[in-house]
Amino acid sequence: MRPLALALVHYPVLDRQGNVVTTSITNLDIHDIARSSFTYGLERYFIVHPVAAQRELAFRVTEHWTSGSGAERIPDRKPPMEAVRVVSTLQAAVLEFSERCSGGGGVEVWVTSAKDLPEMVPHGKARRLLQESGPPVLLVLGTGWGLAPEVVQDAACRLAPIRSPREDGYNHLSVRAAAAIFLDRLLGGIDE
Amino acid sequence: MRPLALALVHYPVLDRQGNVVTTSITNLDIHDIARSSFTYGLERYFIVHPVAAQRELAFRVTEHWTSGSGAERIPDRKPPMEAVRVVSTLQAAVLEFSERCSGGGGVEVWVTSAKDLPEMVPHGKARRLLQESGPPVLLVLGTGWGLAPEVVQDAACRLAPIRSPREDGYNHLSVRAAAAIFLDRLLGGIDE
Repeated sequence: MRPLALALVHYPVLDRQGNVVTTSITNLDIHDIARSSFTYGLERYFIVHPVAAQRELAFRVTEHWTSGSGAERIPDRKPPMEAVRVVSTLQAAVLEFSERCSGGGGVEVWVTSAKDLPEMVPHGKARRLLQESGPPVLLVLGTGWGLAPEVVQDAACRLAPIRSPREDGYNHLSVRAAAAIFLDRLLGGIDE
Repeated sequence: MRPLALALVHYPVLDRQGNVVTTSITNLDIHDIARSSFTYGLERYFIVHPVAAQRELAFRVTEHWTSGSGAERIPDRKPPMEAVRVVSTLQAAVLEFSERCSGGGGVEVWVTSAKDLPEMVPHGKARRLLQESGPPVLLVLGTGWGLAPEVVQDAACRLAPIRSPREDGYNHLSVRAAAAIFLDRLLGGIDE
């Protein structure tokens, strides 16, 4: 099993009109995705934000749950919050994960999207790729209306979107829900 | 395919010590689970709360997105919010769903849990049961530390928990993440 981490990107992402923007950090994105990542055994959950004041906010939230009063009140929240790292760029997340897992060796960036992209990898195949030998994988999700094209283009792997079973194709999962479903499809136990 | 709805219960649920309590409504529980439910084609998303002021709060949130300024600003949010119903008891959700789907006929209550319970149904089997003919199904999730025993005991079906692949068994998904994963396991497209 290759080491896996998740990165939630706040820049560069798209807004509804397709412009490249920076989104704000949402408190429950920290909690929910930290809990999902840790439950599925991920090594790290990187929160990527270019603005120092936003990173400081996210850091203070995690600190409250790792060494502040939150850690005493709800001890179950401590381990997932300890795996959170707040960084300024996706490249910084790649570097930190690379140093942690492979002594500075290669890390594959896998991106997600709610829309169809060229050369997308089905989730069953991605699951098998994770079981094979290979470099550590950083699974990247975008906030807002999704990752900017520059992030998508550079990725080693573009995961297929989570498709809605609806006939009208309506598909507007929150990033928290999408992260949980991607982790379950890639790593969840088989239960028939 | 049997009609399916989801209910999020705020009473009776357990707290960390196992006492039966009432939890407060969380804004993102309304949004995230409404979006996940609608994306997976559910008929209704019931928010169950015994306190009128809390129901009023939830109703005002949904109204903002169905007929208020939210509906204009983010039209994609309108359809999932229109499928939300705020009710005082689980029984009221069962009744309303029964009237909608089967003219007052039977509805099966399926409960979820993060812990092992007697006679649990694996998710693959539950998925097949949904495809067979039978009464509409109300899938019930609890807030706090899970549904009170009285709700679990009365259920027609107890779904197996979402198991963590971690060796230490750590498993503390948010109810928003758990709802998304249950819906994907029961209804999500197969993608190999």
